[in-house]
Amino acid sequence: MRAVDVIAKKRDGHELSTEEIAFFIDGFTADEIPDYQAAAWLMALYLRGMTDGETHDLTMALVHSGETLDLSDVTPLAVDKHSTGGVGDKVSLVLAPLVAACGVPVAKMTGRGLGFSGGTVDKLESIPGYRTDLSVKDFKKQLAEIGIVLTGQSADLAPADRKLYALRDVTATVESIPLIISSIMSKKLAGGAGAVVLDVKVGTGAFMKTMEDAEALAHGLVRLGTQAGREVVALISAMDQPLGWAVGNALEVREAISTLHEGGPRDLREHCLAVAAEMLMLCGKAGDANAALTLALETLSSGAAWQKFRQMVEAQGGDVSTVDDPEKLPQASIVEPVPAPRSGYLASSNAVEIGRAVVALGGGRDEKGLPIDHRVGVLVHHKVGDLVQEGTPLFTVHASDEAKLRAAREQVLAAHVIGDEPVQPLPLFYRRITA
Amino acid sequence: MRAVDVIAKKRDGHELSTEEIAFFIDGFTADEIPDYQAAAWLMALYLRGMTDGETHDLTMALVHSGETLDLSDVTPLAVDKHSTGGVGDKVSLVLAPLVAACGVPVAKMTGRGLGFSGGTVDKLESIPGYRTDLSVKDFKKQLAEIGIVLTGQSADLAPADRKLYALRDVTATVESIPLIISSIMSKKLAGGAGAVVLDVKVGTGAFMKTMEDAEALAHGLVRLGTQAGREVVALISAMDQPLGWAVGNALEVREAISTLHEGGPRDLREHCLAVAAEMLMLCGKAGDANAALTLALETLSSGAAWQKFRQMVEAQGGDVSTVDDPEKLPQASIVEPVPAPRSGYLASSNAVEIGRAVVALGGGRDEKGLPIDHRVGVLVHHKVGDLVQEGTPLFTVHASDEAKLRAAREQVLAAHVIGDEPVQPLPLFYRRITA
Repeated sequence: MRAVDVIAKKRDGHELSTEEIAFFIDGFTADEIPDYQAAAWLMALYLRGMTDGETHDLTMALVHSGETLDLSDVTPLAVDKHSTGGVGDKVSLVLAPLVAACGVPVAKMTGRGLGFSGGTVDKLESIPGYRTDLSVKDFKKQLAEIGIVLTGQSADLAPADRKLYALRDVTATVESIPLIISSIMSKKLAGGAGAVVLDVKVGTGAFMKTMEDAEALAHGLVRLGTQAGREVVALISAMDQPLGWAVGNALEVREAISTLHEGGPRDLREHCLAVAAEMLMLCGKAGDANAALTLALETLSSGAAWQKFRQMVEAQGGDVSTVDDPEKLPQASIVEPVPAPRSGYLASSNAVEIGRAVVALGGGRDEKGLPIDHRVGVLVHHKVGDLVQEGTPLFTVHASDEAKLRAAREQVLAAHVIGDEPVQPLPLFYRRITA
Repeated sequence: MRAVDVIAKKRDGHELSTEEIAFFIDGFTADEIPDYQAAAWLMALYLRGMTDGETHDLTMALVHSGETLDLSDVTPLAVDKHSTGGVGDKVSLVLAPLVAACGVPVAKMTGRGLGFSGGTVDKLESIPGYRTDLSVKDFKKQLAEIGIVLTGQSADLAPADRKLYALRDVTATVESIPLIISSIMSKKLAGGAGAVVLDVKVGTGAFMKTMEDAEALAHGLVRLGTQAGREVVALISAMDQPLGWAVGNALEVREAISTLHEGGPRDLREHCLAVAAEMLMLCGKAGDANAALTLALETLSSGAAWQKFRQMVEAQGGDVSTVDDPEKLPQASIVEPVPAPRSGYLASSNAVEIGRAVVALGGGRDEKGLPIDHRVGVLVHHKVGDLVQEGTPLFTVHASDEAKLRAAREQVLAAHVIGDEPVQPLPLFYRRITA
């Protein structure tokens, strides 16, 4: 078999066989197929599309490029959750301890932020000392001992996905639904998940900008997971405005801690409870939605979720005093509330623009591998539909210097549209998709 | 400007600007844009297609990647010819001296064979001592002195085309009509051609398999040349069976020499005369087709074309005794005529299969840079439509060893189809396309 023939076959719109896909991924992983051939292949896959069979074969080839975790000695059914990424999405920080405190072991590997979209690993690293580079052995040990792990993606799992993603990033082949599906699912399958809840975001602050794309992605993820013998549910959720109030790493950790203490923004709290209920149902901990929501609510109210979070921080080397007293988390030197320029109904709080403003403040990165400033960010004080009053705080900027403060103030002001007419609040979720 | 954005723009089907194309080719030539980005871009160009404007801009960017020849001190209008390649195509060996002997300076850079398709440089190198690596200085000096040069493509002209072609070859992006157009025309324009006759082959032994593709290529070449201010004519010619009888390097040189002596196969002779007439008209040496053909015929009959060929071989260091007595050209150790297995009408003499058989004999290469055996090849003794008689020679194999002989015999036998019904001969040319 020759790589150039596999490229030509896809170029001409034919379906690749399991063997051809495995040949290509194995060769690419072993550096036998060079980047330039993989790049041409990726563009052909992007433009010609992929069948469900090809997507499944690609996913499995990525899974088999490295180790796979077997968590069966720790839990009969490991349940995982994946968000397609957005602005202010700190759901995992609340959700993982909440579900774990319900008695369901949660072993989650998570990623870093890129561009306007934040990442859970960056947020966790706001907590001084918190380790996000656990070995597979430590990962399993901690899971067995306290029933929760929240760490970075292991380089040993699906290494071909990492290599392929780096190439997609520089060859304009990221935004392909089948390629996204195989990237997400290869990591989940390699990580040992038996059941997965997929939070597919749609809107200005998401990678999927249209409902059509989000539905295609959600359906594709559910079909693939089912084909691979996993229990899978996808929720399509709104990402036109930031989720919650905080955008920026330490600010988001503080907001997650508030939520675990039953404070925090209503949309974040409800989002976490809804996803938790799905996870509890998927793994059989609750028989129906009512029982699942009741269990999640009680576990949050009782403080058990917060205790589980605290236990996890301690186990992973984080300074517990900073989560006990979040004022001790890293803080920006400049904190400036920005007043609403007029009264009226908030019609837009553009997530992607606010996400970009936080990147410009130093709280995110445009290229992989760059360091970030965990202290900076933006707190929005209103959600779409709110009636705001001229002169009262619309948002607050946390910045490290005056020039960046001024730039962020302008950008975030421009992201807010206030009008005369009443505006309906945005929904949290649009659709729930099951096999 | 960022390479990834230019890739994404083409990926999404938008037309690239002159600046974007120049940015990409300049960056690629300077190794600032890596192969993997160029590969993704090429696949996007392949699958999304290119407008005439983009094809022109790409051609010009390739031209400007290196030196351009100015032949105006030697000739007011340099005329060139390009064939898209085929099996048994030794036209340049006859045509160049024929046109030069008519008093029109011919300065031609030509290529090597790849796959089933032969190359003029390889054929010329059958002549012991013949140099195909003239410097630009020697090239112009010889053109001024004797009015003819036939050499390899200079690495200084359109170097980006060479680099891009090497990448296309391994990324399944060769067979794109706009990419083929820009590759051909960039070399012709950089070589200083003011007028070009394009011999676009169509058939099993050509890169263009269908008339639709050949016409698209021919029209595209003519439009591009005209847009670039050149006189251009394209001929669409048949390449279902080998041109002439000989396939293989030294065998083809012998056949070209016969043709210059008024022998040789009729189809080759007519093909050369027709293309010569086009060149004579394009550069104003003849006012109409009748005058052009008359001049070409007289020049061939008079022996002047042969003398010009001989003069060129001498000027470029070739051993003249081997062209004076072609028996002295390199000869294969095994020469075996293969009889027709039955009587009947020759319905097919499959050019690509015969071309591949010669590659397998060692007379061609499947990968650039590999050496070849100039002695080996196949002589076909019949053209499609001929009535052949069982037991009389159908073709002759020239081989270096018995195993290769046997393989070639089977392959070339299978390439010949003899039937009961009379078959029409194939045409030489299908269409003539002008601006």
